[in-house]
Amino acid sequence: MRVPYETMYNEFVRVLTKYGMMPERAARSATLYANASLDGVYTHGLNRFPKFINSVEKGCVDMNAIPVLTETSGIVERYDGKHGPGNLNADFCMKRAVELAHQNTIGCVALRNTNHWMRPGAYGLDAADEGCIAVLWTNTVPNMPAWGGKDAKLGNNPVVFAVPHEGGHILLDVAMSMFSYGKLESYARSGKELPVEGGFDKDGNMSKDAAAILETHQPVPIGYWKGSGLSLMLDLIASSLAGGRSTRQVGELPIETELSQVFIAIDLNRLSDKDAVLENIHRTAMDLKESTPMTEGGEVRYPGEGMLKVREENTRLGIPVEEAIWKGVCAL
Amino acid sequence: MRVPYETMYNEFVRVLTKYGMMPERAARSATLYANASLDGVYTHGLNRFPKFINSVEKGCVDMNAIPVLTETSGIVERYDGKHGPGNLNADFCMKRAVELAHQNTIGCVALRNTNHWMRPGAYGLDAADEGCIAVLWTNTVPNMPAWGGKDAKLGNNPVVFAVPHEGGHILLDVAMSMFSYGKLESYARSGKELPVEGGFDKDGNMSKDAAAILETHQPVPIGYWKGSGLSLMLDLIASSLAGGRSTRQVGELPIETELSQVFIAIDLNRLSDKDAVLENIHRTAMDLKESTPMTEGGEVRYPGEGMLKVREENTRLGIPVEEAIWKGVCAL
Repeated sequence: MRVPYETMYNEFVRVLTKYGMMPERAARSATLYANASLDGVYTHGLNRFPKFINSVEKGCVDMNAIPVLTETSGIVERYDGKHGPGNLNADFCMKRAVELAHQNTIGCVALRNTNHWMRPGAYGLDAADEGCIAVLWTNTVPNMPAWGGKDAKLGNNPVVFAVPHEGGHILLDVAMSMFSYGKLESYARSGKELPVEGGFDKDGNMSKDAAAILETHQPVPIGYWKGSGLSLMLDLIASSLAGGRSTRQVGELPIETELSQVFIAIDLNRLSDKDAVLENIHRTAMDLKESTPMTEGGEVRYPGEGMLKVREENTRLGIPVEEAIWKGVCAL
Repeated sequence: MRVPYETMYNEFVRVLTKYGMMPERAARSATLYANASLDGVYTHGLNRFPKFINSVEKGCVDMNAIPVLTETSGIVERYDGKHGPGNLNADFCMKRAVELAHQNTIGCVALRNTNHWMRPGAYGLDAADEGCIAVLWTNTVPNMPAWGGKDAKLGNNPVVFAVPHEGGHILLDVAMSMFSYGKLESYARSGKELPVEGGFDKDGNMSKDAAAILETHQPVPIGYWKGSGLSLMLDLIASSLAGGRSTRQVGELPIETELSQVFIAIDLNRLSDKDAVLENIHRTAMDLKESTPMTEGGEVRYPGEGMLKVREENTRLGIPVEEAIWKGVCAL
């Protein structure tokens, strides 16, 4: 089943407004949710929307809270997210980092007390539209053991890199676990084997069996000990810069909230050789595509390249939805 | 065979001076090489020294060149490394980033036309001694295929994170390939199997056989497609910010030189809640160590923790050396 973009957007606006969000904010939030599904990030578009409304009902989200500047230290700004909606808070902070980058070439904003930021690639793409490289990350609830350990001490702490590129920005959105819980659940449902080892089974063996990993709650970090370290570092920097909760402290709460995030923008337009820089980015992306493929008929793409085809198709044909989820949202 | 620190240091000073390096610079460079071996990073201490001298003989390194400021854009400074020694250039730029962080909370320095930075953890540790978080990375010659490709299009682009911590800084130094070529060679020599899959064999299968991977020159990135994207992004940011060569362009040169690097420092002392921030860092590191170990008698350590024991032991007993390499340096 496919739903036109406008229909989905309007439905999100209706529900968000019904739950007390001011019209202008509802319009922006609905755009972010609908764009996620439009771009093929279904897990953080329509499919995540009911969970967001649920967290509003539980009182975890203040629908109309706006981040408050708590400290300006040098050129770094720290905000308190005031438990506002995670996507609007992140949108606000990325835009502010871009403004600071327009002034100082680099802009850095740290945010505490915020909620799940939904699809972070959106903020990266917006920064790239402004001619900025963007690097942003969040911490999460503890959901991954440190390398060598059994109990979840680390978050999977997704990080986004966006680099401006005329034919479609280069966009990387990766968590520090090899597979998200959403991906593991999807593989477990389908009974298919993971393409690479994704965690440990109950006997402590590395496994491609998603169901076995869901049982132990022991996903592996990307690059094993390396991703374990990277996750820790992202958490320490985010919580330190934001003056907010670390993953460990988020784990002390009954639900995942009061997260810490960092938004960095680098304005390429301010560099004296910006044309040469953009040309080099383009040539590097094209060079990657000229790789000899590992498998016959295979193709190497730069991160973010595939998304453009999905966006075009979903714009033309409507956004594919799981009918039950879509009907559930319409009934809210 | 073990060699006292002072003996090793003096030998490095002697050789560097003989090859034309000014005394003060030779002292600093010798310290960086000797400290690498002292801390157990033998590959980038004594063992790398002959290769450095070889690159000097080839004319790739200008022993007394100092980075030159080419542009100040906002608070970002760009330097031309003038083909100077990579470790002294990196040392200079990290120190400058720390100075900028003392002024603006965040400091960012980009460096082009530099050489291999040897052991980058050293610069991170120095920044942490100054109360700064440090994030620094370099690009390299193409030495890793993009995910889905066969030919080396990406660098392994090592990145260092350092976070100040009273009991010993938290230090992560990771390349974007699962194993370095040095590690692969060491495993191949010993005939031991890699602990996890490290690349592809000639039949295109993922393999734990280091010799088979050395044959194809197809190491895997950490987290497969994820590390492939991360490597690209690190390269694009470093080369863009520095206005220097990207990995692709480094690959056009006969040897690995004219690299691009980024040095970011964040001064925690400038934050209003610095004591709480440092306390949270400490508690997070300690919490990690309280993980239930995966294997009986196992232990989870924070990155950088193990190094302190090695440093203490090597200070007390002397630095373990491969006799042939040590004698080679003494004969230079």
